Amino acid sequence: MAPSPPVDFSIADLQRHIRVMYFEKDAARGVEGTFMWLMEEIGELSTALRGNDRENLAEEFADVIAWLATIANVVDIDLAAALATKYGSGCPGCKKLVCICPNEEKP
Amino acid sequence: MAPSPPVDFSIADLQRHIRVMYFEKDAARGVEGTFMWLMEEIGELSTALRGNDRENLAEEFADVIAWLATIANVVDIDLAAALATKYGSGCPGCKKLVCICPNEEKP
Repeated sequence: MAPSPPVDFSIADLQRHIRVMYFEKDAARGVEGTFMWLMEEIGELSTALRGNDRENLAEEFADVIAWLATIANVVDIDLAAALATKYGSGCPGCKKLVCICPNEEKP
Repeated sequence: MAPSPPVDFSIADLQRHIRVMYFEKDAARGVEGTFMWLMEEIGELSTALRGNDRENLAEEFADVIAWLATIANVVDIDLAAALATKYGSGCPGCKKLVCICPNEEKP
């Protein structure tokens, strides 16, 4: 397999990239069917986490994120804005950059 | 609620940010316990997708991505490299920027 291209997508670029590649099919399939694809990928991630194939494990993480971006496209949610809003200023619980939430709240 | 900060994390920055905030707790919890948290967030995303609260929906997407980044940190997978490798050159199935995979393979 070729080495990874030296690319670090931004979240917005990733979402746009997935939209360009797949939006027509994604919109036709709709949110319920797309959510089932996400669940299939989550299952594959679970399997990969229990195994020893690092390349496959990386691929399953990529697939789960791609299907999340797909669903976000179908329901028109801006992932970059969502992440910046929730996590851009530190832990949403304690507001600290390094989380100090008590273990009963964030174990 | 305050408007979103105008931040577009890169995938690598997001993973680093989550690591700084949570790695100590994440490593102590381990992959199995962290996967269960991810599943809880997936359930909340499913609920939000069926509802009408757009702000909550955005938040649930952010949470799922954050927990994915957390698991990637625990198992030391580079999400940016994983995404670039799998999706950086177009659809992994047909290799085209706009997917033309037949519907039986990628419906």
